[in-house]
Amino acid sequence: MSSPSSTDRRPLRVALLGCGVVGSQVARMLTEHAADLAARAGAPLELVGVAVRDVSVPREGVDPALLTTDAGPLVDAADIVVEVMGGDEPARGLMLRAIAGGAAVVTANKALLASDGPALYAAADEAGVDIYFEAAVAGAIPIVRPVRESLAGDYVRKVLGIVNGTTNYVLDQMSTTGLGLDEAVAQAQQLGYAEADPTADVGGHDAAAKAAILASLAFHTRVTLDDVACEGITSITADDVAWAAKTGHVVKLLAIAERTPDGVSARVHPALVPADHPLAGVRGAFNAVFVEAEAAGDLMFYGQGAGGAPTASAVLGDVVSAARHRVLGGKGPEESTYAALPVVPASSAITRYQVRLLVVDRPGVLAQVAHLLADQGVSIEAVRQAPSDRPAGVDEPSGLAHLIITTHTATEAALAGTVEAVAALDPVREITSVLRVEGA
Amino acid sequence: MSSPSSTDRRPLRVALLGCGVVGSQVARMLTEHAADLAARAGAPLELVGVAVRDVSVPREGVDPALLTTDAGPLVDAADIVVEVMGGDEPARGLMLRAIAGGAAVVTANKALLASDGPALYAAADEAGVDIYFEAAVAGAIPIVRPVRESLAGDYVRKVLGIVNGTTNYVLDQMSTTGLGLDEAVAQAQQLGYAEADPTADVGGHDAAAKAAILASLAFHTRVTLDDVACEGITSITADDVAWAAKTGHVVKLLAIAERTPDGVSARVHPALVPADHPLAGVRGAFNAVFVEAEAAGDLMFYGQGAGGAPTASAVLGDVVSAARHRVLGGKGPEESTYAALPVVPASSAITRYQVRLLVVDRPGVLAQVAHLLADQGVSIEAVRQAPSDRPAGVDEPSGLAHLIITTHTATEAALAGTVEAVAALDPVREITSVLRVEGA
Repeated sequence: MSSPSSTDRRPLRVALLGCGVVGSQVARMLTEHAADLAARAGAPLELVGVAVRDVSVPREGVDPALLTTDAGPLVDAADIVVEVMGGDEPARGLMLRAIAGGAAVVTANKALLASDGPALYAAADEAGVDIYFEAAVAGAIPIVRPVRESLAGDYVRKVLGIVNGTTNYVLDQMSTTGLGLDEAVAQAQQLGYAEADPTADVGGHDAAAKAAILASLAFHTRVTLDDVACEGITSITADDVAWAAKTGHVVKLLAIAERTPDGVSARVHPALVPADHPLAGVRGAFNAVFVEAEAAGDLMFYGQGAGGAPTASAVLGDVVSAARHRVLGGKGPEESTYAALPVVPASSAITRYQVRLLVVDRPGVLAQVAHLLADQGVSIEAVRQAPSDRPAGVDEPSGLAHLIITTHTATEAALAGTVEAVAALDPVREITSVLRVEGA
Repeated sequence: MSSPSSTDRRPLRVALLGCGVVGSQVARMLTEHAADLAARAGAPLELVGVAVRDVSVPREGVDPALLTTDAGPLVDAADIVVEVMGGDEPARGLMLRAIAGGAAVVTANKALLASDGPALYAAADEAGVDIYFEAAVAGAIPIVRPVRESLAGDYVRKVLGIVNGTTNYVLDQMSTTGLGLDEAVAQAQQLGYAEADPTADVGGHDAAAKAAILASLAFHTRVTLDDVACEGITSITADDVAWAAKTGHVVKLLAIAERTPDGVSARVHPALVPADHPLAGVRGAFNAVFVEAEAAGDLMFYGQGAGGAPTASAVLGDVVSAARHRVLGGKGPEESTYAALPVVPASSAITRYQVRLLVVDRPGVLAQVAHLLADQGVSIEAVRQAPSDRPAGVDEPSGLAHLIITTHTATEAALAGTVEAVAALDPVREITSVLRVEGA
């Protein structure tokens, strides 16, 4: 690369506002991954301070000397301000102060963006600085860049989002277990998927804030929380969920942003989604955003919409973008080959396998094959035996059986040797197939 | 906005190389959406010429005066060169000429990037220009920006991609119909999902080129086609697919890029994917890229991986990015509110509904309800009647039944009036639920 090394540059000063579930992960990753982040950002990223309400509370992995209750001066001295404190004030005032001081702002504060986004964007435009908010829409799921940049040459017609993990978990549980709403919410609370007061989630208010941001993004129009019609899942019964299944649907709480002949509509409500729609397969606490675009057709973005580490991932992606913009003047899709890792042959890949055999159908064969695999150091996860439809004959009076063996992880090389040895066993007639198993 | 109007600026000159399935859509969209693209790009985008092999072939929607066989001078005069001709030469030479001349390059040429990417990136680095290639990886699916920018603060561990629509269609058909490979390929050919010579798809070579690009992207390392171990679906049998189902899996052709302790591995092969994995739900000719990242966790990007309009959408997104970078110096996440559409109330939203009623179980009730809906102008898509488990009594000697009505699209207002009228009908005991249907 022709540019000077990233470590030669003046460090960029990062101020962190808030050190809760997300902030502590941001602080950890900024520190632990400092060298890699510097290479990616084009300059070292220096965490210069962490604004908290109470400095006497220890924060794991954060140098206590960085903690301060005096956020103002911290903001004034920063190149990049990361706001993960949430809530209205002091977040709003501190963000405006950062903008006025010329710092780039990275925020995960969906409620504030949904209510005060237009004012914040206007202030940033005025000051010529950037606000990044990938973490505010759907946690770790990249949605801001895809919609704003990748689809910049297309027209978005409609966005359907499962953007609240709590309600998706609750509806999913109702669907798989037949539980009623209250029982499913109680279970979600026990497992930490729902707050003690679940109103913001169950009432659809969290999803409504995200609907406002999604609508603004998709249609390049200022949509605020007040514009969003909001209906939660409180009226959904076990019967509704059961009847949905009977008619080939699942119930999902959707945040919807839609281009209509008259303008833009944004709303949140439960809806029946056809069982074969990609959104129907979004299970548990996962989130997904489904986009219908004129030329691109249907797109879906899927991932974790909440949680400390996933949200911190989105925040740090924005921090790197903000830093690159400062250092390189926004050089866009640079070819970044800073890692330059060796490429290893596929035969060293470690994966799981499913091996299908045709064996003589007599007692002890399964044990014999399992024994051989164990001798070869290949660990079995599951074995299944099923009679073959090939009729018994003179040579094979007891007929043949299929043996389906699923292994734990093994290298290609280890497996190849094992398959050869299995094929040579007396009761084995045929190795019917060897397939790798991925995603498990 | 404080910046000058986009139409005040000097137009950016766009040269189009190739006018086939993708190129003709790019030309159409550049022309039809000129005003919107100018607003998004920050300057008008002027299509200054289209290089083709034979100017005598008419291209629908393209001004014949723009066609030329002399691509060189066209490239020399352009600010942005869009390469959608495919193949090796002359594409490679023209891209290098564009780079040397200081133009930004947008390409959909996966084969060329997989083989010669490193040389092209090096040339672009040297000249200080950008190469954009969102369309080369998975068609319309935004994957370059999410991986390169949104995940810039994270570590990608593994990428699993369904990146070839033809083989996914074929495997999906084998799975749903029990067809053998040859029959499924023949059917895909009849429907236009497979080429007359399906070798590049079925043999995994198309997927291998994408695996090389995905691995380079995910691990910031130069991986070329030669590094990718490639196995197609030619050995997959109807039995393999049937047994996969019996053991809770589906067979998918995967492009895999993986971080291993020793470096990076890239490979393409068929694999068993658990039926509840998000990739298992990717049906027909759709593509998806599943990413496992350290902090973000599991992410998936889903959409159309091929076709004229979807690929053109990705190309135009890149053209707008390239233009913004030229005009605004790469100002990143600008708040773009150029559309400023009115926000309409949710009650004007037009959607489909499923209404569940409890009615007296006697002949003619269904017809009576259907008649009323027709009178109100609400069109019925489906009605289903099912006996209620409430026992018959003195008042309801014939018992009660559930009536589940799914409507075609209607406004909220029209539906509200209709539900009221239905509730007033004599045999209707209860409106049990009214739910919207989305995604159908």
